[in-house]
Amino acid sequence: MPDTILEHSHYRLMQPDNKISITIINDMIEDIENDLHEDSHEFIAYIKDIISDWHDSDIGELISNLSKQTQLTFFDCLGHDLPDDIIAYIPEGLHEDILDHLTDQQLTRYLRNMESDDALAIIESIAREDRENIFKLLPDAASSMYRKLLTYPEDSAARIMRRESVVIPEHWIVGDIIDYMRERHSFLPSQFYNIIIVDPSHKPVGLIPLATLMRMERPTKIYDIMDSNALHIIPTDMDQEDVAQLFRKYGLIEVPVTDEFGRFVGVITIDDVVDVIDEEHSEDMLRLAGVGEHNLYADITQMTKARFSWLFINLLTAVLASVAIAIFSDVLAQIVSLAILMPIVASMGGNAATQTMTVTIRAITLNQINRKTLISIFFKESFVGWINGVIFAILSFMMAYVWFEEIFLGIIIGMAMIINLVIAGICGVVIPITLNHMKFDPAVSSSVFVTTITDIVGFGAFLGLASFYIL
Amino acid sequence: MPDTILEHSHYRLMQPDNKISITIINDMIEDIENDLHEDSHEFIAYIKDIISDWHDSDIGELISNLSKQTQLTFFDCLGHDLPDDIIAYIPEGLHEDILDHLTDQQLTRYLRNMESDDALAIIESIAREDRENIFKLLPDAASSMYRKLLTYPEDSAARIMRRESVVIPEHWIVGDIIDYMRERHSFLPSQFYNIIIVDPSHKPVGLIPLATLMRMERPTKIYDIMDSNALHIIPTDMDQEDVAQLFRKYGLIEVPVTDEFGRFVGVITIDDVVDVIDEEHSEDMLRLAGVGEHNLYADITQMTKARFSWLFINLLTAVLASVAIAIFSDVLAQIVSLAILMPIVASMGGNAATQTMTVTIRAITLNQINRKTLISIFFKESFVGWINGVIFAILSFMMAYVWFEEIFLGIIIGMAMIINLVIAGICGVVIPITLNHMKFDPAVSSSVFVTTITDIVGFGAFLGLASFYIL
Repeated sequence: MPDTILEHSHYRLMQPDNKISITIINDMIEDIENDLHEDSHEFIAYIKDIISDWHDSDIGELISNLSKQTQLTFFDCLGHDLPDDIIAYIPEGLHEDILDHLTDQQLTRYLRNMESDDALAIIESIAREDRENIFKLLPDAASSMYRKLLTYPEDSAARIMRRESVVIPEHWIVGDIIDYMRERHSFLPSQFYNIIIVDPSHKPVGLIPLATLMRMERPTKIYDIMDSNALHIIPTDMDQEDVAQLFRKYGLIEVPVTDEFGRFVGVITIDDVVDVIDEEHSEDMLRLAGVGEHNLYADITQMTKARFSWLFINLLTAVLASVAIAIFSDVLAQIVSLAILMPIVASMGGNAATQTMTVTIRAITLNQINRKTLISIFFKESFVGWINGVIFAILSFMMAYVWFEEIFLGIIIGMAMIINLVIAGICGVVIPITLNHMKFDPAVSSSVFVTTITDIVGFGAFLGLASFYIL
Repeated sequence: MPDTILEHSHYRLMQPDNKISITIINDMIEDIENDLHEDSHEFIAYIKDIISDWHDSDIGELISNLSKQTQLTFFDCLGHDLPDDIIAYIPEGLHEDILDHLTDQQLTRYLRNMESDDALAIIESIAREDRENIFKLLPDAASSMYRKLLTYPEDSAARIMRRESVVIPEHWIVGDIIDYMRERHSFLPSQFYNIIIVDPSHKPVGLIPLATLMRMERPTKIYDIMDSNALHIIPTDMDQEDVAQLFRKYGLIEVPVTDEFGRFVGVITIDDVVDVIDEEHSEDMLRLAGVGEHNLYADITQMTKARFSWLFINLLTAVLASVAIAIFSDVLAQIVSLAILMPIVASMGGNAATQTMTVTIRAITLNQINRKTLISIFFKESFVGWINGVIFAILSFMMAYVWFEEIFLGIIIGMAMIINLVIAGICGVVIPITLNHMKFDPAVSSSVFVTTITDIVGFGAFLGLASFYIL
């Protein structure tokens, strides 16, 4: 028995309530990196034993944190003992090498035993030309299903739905469902929350939550207890963000999806929607900061590209602001302290505008903008701009006066501050709303416009007032 | 029959699949604002009839969009016909006036028939001194439960858990549960997904998803089918963000909550977790933009306060950047074009740093930072800083040369650009990680540090190189 096994038997002891702590995973990573080889049979058996009662998600986390080479060794040594859906628990940017390393037969073994939504996500990340080999090894029904699903747009409902579900005709009674489920029990999906009821043309007409079904007597007619009123239906081509909005608004758990003829084709469950919400959040934040498509595992070329276009646009707008300054180069040449103070006005305007803009964009995302809130938000933001403008006018007046002992510098920085903060408040509301109205994504494009305006107004107002004062 | 009723009978016709479109709600709002009075009985009956088959969430949206006064009239006219949990569907910032307007008896009527998590959220927003009157009108058991729940910290698991659930002892068989549920069917919560199994001291020892239970024969022993391995337990004082992380990681739907003695006290369900995730995300975005506690319905004083402190800090850091400029006022006085170009370098650095910082903060929030990713992210970001630095050095060299026809201006702006973009990449990783390590919220505090550094480095490097060149 190698030393490592004795040393690390504390892995098991340290698992309170079956929860695997991050510390344990971190300790294990180092040992696996050092000691895992194809012929270290005892160590392999030991790891196998340890992870046998782990949640798939924890095993996925362990693998994700190994170095590329060790990941592949891990699959070679322990592949047969890993859960069927393990690849679904390794983030997209990290599982490509593993997919390349596995033989088509091995990969198909995993895909066969996965739920359709997880399998589809993995097939999506296989290169188009390699997909056919996989399809040949899968059962015909499965292949043609995945081929069909791949024809739907990338962010559509069809891509996150699960095919497996329990669907029954409307003329059944409760007893029929119970018998059916007991009979078919090994074919049912592991988790589901509603029974979907369809008419003879396979259109969903209602659903019954399991919690309702369970409390009904066997002879109860399905038709009498199904809730058609609460039935929401998602077409296959609905955008994932709209799906998330629907789940959020009505507190849904599982919703049937229908094809272009209104026939039932699958269900979307809340856990997939949580992933969509998280993704959507990441996108929102990154877009606001001017980062394109991005994940933590992107390589340097992808990263540079994702940042470049925004920085390029920023260079152009920064030059615009410089042009605004250049107009007043005569005044600048006369009074050097203007050059020292001018970035303050622009910076305050940019920050105030970003505050307002973020609040507005968040309200747009959460669907909170309507005629009533729009008018109120506009007036409130302008007014807040005035109040903060006056406060910071006084503060910057004092700062400039103390520093340069020139009343006139204090007055013009104060006046420019008020102008820029009011403009910032107005632009922070009007620009995202207008962009959204024109069907542009306000998170991507607002910042450029807003900060360009506050820069130009900031420099222009400050230097303009100064040249006016000097004349 | 008043005109309005005929005019607006299209409300009903326009509801495809029972979904209430935003257009319909907007049309109705105007009519209700104009025509709803205590004595317009026919109109009231008409509205009542229309909304009778609406989802509570849509009725909530309708009410939220009415003016304050009409909201109160709406409750006076239709209060008895509204769903019991209607107040839970009106956002917090909008329901205060309604709570004030309702008599304690009316309010208690709503609270009695709500699930405990929704009721608790409403009790939280009632002023402390008024809560006792409500507690007197509620059943003793309910009052003491809410009093107890209010003792837990505001963002703890206890505040979002629901007390109502189905709990059974471990020695039962499947048939016992089915009989129990049929017998007690009107007392069960409307939605639940698991049966919780407890030991004699009321500690949770396992759970059975309804989907599993339904496929088992009546004589099956619970002990044989319950999954103790997959049991997650949330203590009442766990932070809501940690709760969200747990649900997210393990794809959970419903998790039991235990008190300080490990006894079962309630469950948290995924729909409440989605609210937490949304809230958490709003906070993250707003903090990044330097906006404090905030919602769309805040008044002007709250808004000004929420923005003030960040703007004040920004004023101080902007002054720091001005001090950096002031050091080189001699060079500025000699060459005015330096003042024109200097904001470009600072602005590019600020933007590049914000990009990197946002990616880092997002990775921290999603728990993706560990030793391996940290090292890789650090080197990749520094390298991306170099590449973009060189690209933008060339671009800004050309821009400055074309504009001012001075090689030396082009060279110093290019060199300053490289320096600032590399520093931006490094600070964008190191500062949020360090702040997070020191238990500060990186979203709140990173921006100040990062942009202050890129401003000072931007101005300092550019003007410093210029003065060195001139000497």
